[in-house]
Amino acid sequence: MFESAEIGHKLGKEEYRKREPELRSALLDAQYELLEKGKGPVIILVNGVDGAGKGETVNLFNEWMDPRHIRTEAFGPLNDEERRRPEMWRFWQALPAKGRIGILFGSWYTDPILAHVMGNEKKARFAARLERIRQFERMLVAEGAVLVKMWFHLSKEASRKRMKELRADPKTAWRVPKEELKRADHYDEFVQVCEEALRKTSTGIAPWLVVEASDPEYRALTAGNYLLEALKTAVDEKARPSVNAVPLPPVAIDGRTLLGSYDYKRALTKKKYESELETLQARLALLCRSPQMAERTLIVAFEGMDAAGKGSTIRRITHALDARHYRIIPVAAPSDEERAHPYLWRFWRHIPPHGRTVIFDRTWYGRVLVERVEKFCAEEDWMRAYDEINGFEEQLSQSGAILVKFWLSITPQEQLRRFEERKNTPHKNFKITEEDWRNRKKWPLYERAVGDMIDRTSTEIAPWHVVASDDKLFSRIEVVRTLCERLEAAFGTAGKPGKADKAGKDKAEKDKAGKK
Amino acid sequence: MFESAEIGHKLGKEEYRKREPELRSALLDAQYELLEKGKGPVIILVNGVDGAGKGETVNLFNEWMDPRHIRTEAFGPLNDEERRRPEMWRFWQALPAKGRIGILFGSWYTDPILAHVMGNEKKARFAARLERIRQFERMLVAEGAVLVKMWFHLSKEASRKRMKELRADPKTAWRVPKEELKRADHYDEFVQVCEEALRKTSTGIAPWLVVEASDPEYRALTAGNYLLEALKTAVDEKARPSVNAVPLPPVAIDGRTLLGSYDYKRALTKKKYESELETLQARLALLCRSPQMAERTLIVAFEGMDAAGKGSTIRRITHALDARHYRIIPVAAPSDEERAHPYLWRFWRHIPPHGRTVIFDRTWYGRVLVERVEKFCAEEDWMRAYDEINGFEEQLSQSGAILVKFWLSITPQEQLRRFEERKNTPHKNFKITEEDWRNRKKWPLYERAVGDMIDRTSTEIAPWHVVASDDKLFSRIEVVRTLCERLEAAFGTAGKPGKADKAGKDKAEKDKAGKK
Repeated sequence: MFESAEIGHKLGKEEYRKREPELRSALLDAQYELLEKGKGPVIILVNGVDGAGKGETVNLFNEWMDPRHIRTEAFGPLNDEERRRPEMWRFWQALPAKGRIGILFGSWYTDPILAHVMGNEKKARFAARLERIRQFERMLVAEGAVLVKMWFHLSKEASRKRMKELRADPKTAWRVPKEELKRADHYDEFVQVCEEALRKTSTGIAPWLVVEASDPEYRALTAGNYLLEALKTAVDEKARPSVNAVPLPPVAIDGRTLLGSYDYKRALTKKKYESELETLQARLALLCRSPQMAERTLIVAFEGMDAAGKGSTIRRITHALDARHYRIIPVAAPSDEERAHPYLWRFWRHIPPHGRTVIFDRTWYGRVLVERVEKFCAEEDWMRAYDEINGFEEQLSQSGAILVKFWLSITPQEQLRRFEERKNTPHKNFKITEEDWRNRKKWPLYERAVGDMIDRTSTEIAPWHVVASDDKLFSRIEVVRTLCERLEAAFGTAGKPGKADKAGKDKAEKDKAGKK
Repeated sequence: MFESAEIGHKLGKEEYRKREPELRSALLDAQYELLEKGKGPVIILVNGVDGAGKGETVNLFNEWMDPRHIRTEAFGPLNDEERRRPEMWRFWQALPAKGRIGILFGSWYTDPILAHVMGNEKKARFAARLERIRQFERMLVAEGAVLVKMWFHLSKEASRKRMKELRADPKTAWRVPKEELKRADHYDEFVQVCEEALRKTSTGIAPWLVVEASDPEYRALTAGNYLLEALKTAVDEKARPSVNAVPLPPVAIDGRTLLGSYDYKRALTKKKYESELETLQARLALLCRSPQMAERTLIVAFEGMDAAGKGSTIRRITHALDARHYRIIPVAAPSDEERAHPYLWRFWRHIPPHGRTVIFDRTWYGRVLVERVEKFCAEEDWMRAYDEINGFEEQLSQSGAILVKFWLSITPQEQLRRFEERKNTPHKNFKITEEDWRNRKKWPLYERAVGDMIDRTSTEIAPWHVVASDDKLFSRIEVVRTLCERLEAAFGTAGKPGKADKAGKDKAEKDKAGKK
């Protein structure tokens, strides 16, 4: 990977002076075109060995172009806010909007590489983190981003020489902190790990560019030219990577659907409901106040057709919680800032730190439900979403989140009954709009989408809990009980000790048992 | 203040059961009306003595209404992100958008009161913090917010009794942490300080409601009824507080203007410019890397007519900085999320922590410039903005920010020349739009607005630096030099040791000396 970057590339100062103004003006034009067309964003990752001129290059980019539309972020050690969330959270917060250029100094590669070099993380964990990065970058590119991944390289000898020079001069000695000196002793291991990281993440859609860094003029012009190409790619209409996904098969030939297979007749009497609810809410209240929550985050996701009872169910849950520790996120149409970012960005914004609970009233699954049915995004976009969502949920889970997803399932007949009831109840009729009637007509399309969603995203760590909800009382009890069971499983206080995964799967199995 | 809240108010359980369902339904209706009309927000502050049922009340509000549109925030000790910014920053981040209800548990009152009770802050500082709160609340109300300030009170005796009960029961003992026990010993001092705080901040537009808290039914219904009134007020079109501001006097009778009084003939040769710029940039680079920056934030604000040279000047500054430590915020039309909050919210979002630099290309002064001239807001709105902005800048300064504000001043003749030049230069003509020509026609209105702005917001801690900018070279040098001088003054490394304030004022005086 680094062979060509140790041959002593060099550019004369004369040559540089000749070519730099032209490059600079082309970069500025390309930047403005990106901005005007609202394409991209262009995300530049600046990585490489210590002393290889990474900082200089970043400053040069800001000088060459209009820095007002560039967002440079340097990532250091985690702060309090970051430590209590999934590791990718801070990168999501730093993603530039469409039209903009983001420069990430110390990117999502830094920590995996260092942790592996320093021996804190073994091979398997390293490989898993690289795989996550590949997924993440695939998603970014599919969302229109252009990734510019630059690696600034110095051979062992050049690296030593550079470090010596910096330390000799009192004006620059501060630039070589102790950790860097320590890292220098590990040059060989470091480069070996980097090489592996680069090889495994240099994909067709987001390849690495390795730049030999010892000659400042060669380095600057090589990096600048590559960036120019990236800016041009971002605004080129034809450049979107083609996707050749095979369309999903049509409906099952026997006409049966997953949602149709549940038993909607199950119901509870008011009396039974009230006594069960009280017991369950007390159980939930205790669980949520468990000391174990200090290291966990509870994320509850609700989906369901219109009038499935999401709002009223949520209120039965929050009744048991302390308002200071939860937040409910009602998900409606995205704001304009949200629209300028990848679709998962608006959910990452709301991921709470450990100890907190967040309840989503509609979720990231909008991508594969309403956006699919209403054709707000292309088929390849919602097709890739299954995988992206599974990756997202895996990250949540790995950072300690207990993720509980409910599909409140009602029959079309019950929905009609509720619509009519709402229409005829004065203080409820604002809850029913023209759009609800329009959506209702698309029931079969939605049903199809829900089936695909459950098939593809009901995982061990985050199974879907499908709750037959024609009877509201039965449905609410099911939801609160499931929540208690998932928490107990996660805390290891369920009947048998075990991981959340296991218990989650058991629960999902039980759901299936409830089918008619 | 607490007299009526120690008389033993009580409501029978019977009475409560009768009135609660009605209140609940009215609250829910009022909440939805708020949401549909996009009014408010309604911001509820929940304060009071320990053990007075604050948490219970918050939970009750969430139960009575639709919790999906309520944002409850509990504020504890500062985390690292918060500690490095002005104290009000975290409250700005938690402000609910229009249509929403925000419940703040532990509000902007908590810290001033505790700091004063515990003797960490003296009377004068306490008074200053209360005055800041009054300003802040005045602004919120003027922006459409309705403040519900509730104080839950227990007499000394009732408070002791309550604490004892909680501690006696193992199930609730955890709710009385050590700090609370310590505070209980200081009941008298605590209540005395609270009384003063309440008295001084119980204004006509945002009064306090003191609720006797010993009887849960009385407490709940009193708080609920008051909240209902607040929700009704928020959607009442006629309820906006009337403003009787005297209109500003017309133009000066001698026809002279502040901007017209500067000398626009000053210029530099290219050679002199280049040598001075290099020296100044080196000086700036060193200053920005000073260890003293660890406790400071540099905020540079640029305003000026179209084509005044803001962008190119900013690039001369950033050339000296490290891209990892600054961010440029180009300010254009607000996003929809920004529009749903008070106008300063969009700037609070970008206030960086200590050690960082942020450069605003157009600023919060848009409120008193474009919004005034284009009548995007009412006269009373921009009139109050001067005071609000001064308060905002004072907070920045108190948290360690060095705030440097530039007005790049050009003559109408020079603007015309630059417009024509842009029109005729291919890669610059995107920079000139119809709107620029439209704005130009309103020159006298803008000039008037700029004069008022400088008169009213050039303060000791944040003076305006008006730079005659018809000659771009002269202007850039002036800006970079001023920046260096302000930093040196702040760091106490200028000729005479002294506070930033003093030096800032000296500099502002020098500007005036530059007038013809």
